[in-house]
Amino acid sequence: MHTGRAFSILNYMVQRSSAHFNASFAALADATRRGVLDQLARGDASITDLADRFEMTLTGMKKHVGVLELAGLVTTEKVGRVRTCRIGPCRLEEEMAWIARYRRVWDARFEALEGVIDELKRQEKARGRKKRK
Amino acid sequence: MHTGRAFSILNYMVQRSSAHFNASFAALADATRRGVLDQLARGDASITDLADRFEMTLTGMKKHVGVLELAGLVTTEKVGRVRTCRIGPCRLEEEMAWIARYRRVWDARFEALEGVIDELKRQEKARGRKKRK
Repeated sequence: MHTGRAFSILNYMVQRSSAHFNASFAALADATRRGVLDQLARGDASITDLADRFEMTLTGMKKHVGVLELAGLVTTEKVGRVRTCRIGPCRLEEEMAWIARYRRVWDARFEALEGVIDELKRQEKARGRKKRK
Repeated sequence: MHTGRAFSILNYMVQRSSAHFNASFAALADATRRGVLDQLARGDASITDLADRFEMTLTGMKKHVGVLELAGLVTTEKVGRVRTCRIGPCRLEEEMAWIARYRRVWDARFEALEGVIDELKRQEKARGRKKRK
């Protein structure tokens, strides 16, 4: 495939789910937010519960939950004065696929590098044998 | 297992690789940086190459490469006046494992919810039959 064409396909793929990926990876880039997800995966909790559990102010926790909500990782519902948080519709499916694809290319690239190194070693050895003769 | 103990184990796990996860997920939370990784997985490139390809200033690209380098996703080497970038040692293995684990818990939780809904439907139906009698 022509490099230009390959690049434009790649570029399209990168752009397509770009906004979604930005939001979800950014949401995961914080230990408290990952902790909140772990917590909610085990059961629903109010913002107050979460703030207590992570020893944080209500305002701080509301911010974190907002970031998770934007990424579709959490949904919230207010009943009376309590806002209940639960895990959202985003199953991190595409994120997983992105990482899996990256790892495949990574592995292929390193295998190729190893091949080059082996070839260099073989040539080195052959030169060594020639010299000794 | 006691909830407090479960939580402290969870907390330990969250903290352990916390700094690394923050760096790698933050690095992935940007379309240009994901594009650079895609690009480098296909072949080494200089900062100048990357800046051209992504239509960006050298300073801007240097910043992005710096973020990727901190996360172990890229390594760079300066030979003469050219800094060559290549994919780094981080294979996103733990990130993949984190997401996989989250998805397992997510699936289990939604299956459990479906079970509750099915049970409620069954009870509703049973009540409907009683009323008709």
